[in-house]
Amino acid sequence: MESSSGARVTCLILRILTFVFLFISFFVLVTTSQTVESVKFHFNNFHTYRYVLATIIIGVVFNLLQIAFSLLNIVKGATGTILFDFFGDKFLSYLLATGTAAGFGLSVDLQTLDPDDYFGTFFDKAYAASALLLFAFFCSAAVSIISSFALSKRP
Amino acid sequence: MESSSGARVTCLILRILTFVFLFISFFVLVTTSQTVESVKFHFNNFHTYRYVLATIIIGVVFNLLQIAFSLLNIVKGATGTILFDFFGDKFLSYLLATGTAAGFGLSVDLQTLDPDDYFGTFFDKAYAASALLLFAFFCSAAVSIISSFALSKRP
Repeated sequence: MESSSGARVTCLILRILTFVFLFISFFVLVTTSQTVESVKFHFNNFHTYRYVLATIIIGVVFNLLQIAFSLLNIVKGATGTILFDFFGDKFLSYLLATGTAAGFGLSVDLQTLDPDDYFGTFFDKAYAASALLLFAFFCSAAVSIISSFALSKRP
Repeated sequence: MESSSGARVTCLILRILTFVFLFISFFVLVTTSQTVESVKFHFNNFHTYRYVLATIIIGVVFNLLQIAFSLLNIVKGATGTILFDFFGDKFLSYLLATGTAAGFGLSVDLQTLDPDDYFGTFFDKAYAASALLLFAFFCSAAVSIISSFALSKRP
């Protein structure tokens, strides 16, 4: 019971961290745009960055739902959401992993089209958003490991 | 004990399917290249496709290792690799998820640079390789769910 309640608090902290990283990543990504001599690079022009934004938004909404359930569980001491947590964490961590990979992948190869680094600010922001998403993924993957071990505590 | 041995056989089948998808994906990806009027598109020119290739190769090697352990377990009836399976499947499925997302992301946005579809064959192959990797990811994620539930069977 002790270790189980400790695991719940750890999960809650990691989920709040995930939320913080996603939240900052959102604002960095939506401000990712730069105009150099009438050539405008906007994150919205690229399907991949739009997908990254979608993973962030779905991630935030889902994450807040999980935090609400976590708090409810800690307050009420219920164990009814073990399966929901397990599948939810798995889904969320896969989602954030794909967003991170898509964001980094496109940024790296787009940057080779700009060898003189005119759009340095654009790529700095794109990398920053992807890196923050990566941290969110790490937290989410850690929660997913904990919620997998919690499966054995099902009633 | 019955259900445990059934789960093991299911895992083995899913792992072999993962291997098959990865294997075909490998050959599709390494032949992804097209030359149109002295402009050569080769998968090797893009960092992202090289990363996708890396995930496939690491995936195949790791997957074969897991199949070997699975067979050993079924023959010997041992349960010693539950933790190895759990963390291994988690790692492999995250790896394949990132490879899939990076491959699809870059392909979609590269294709917008080629509105007249000169490099149609190149993109067809790139999409095919990513789609096969996606199927490999699905199998791997399913194994990961089974190996998470198997955690409760630890001695």
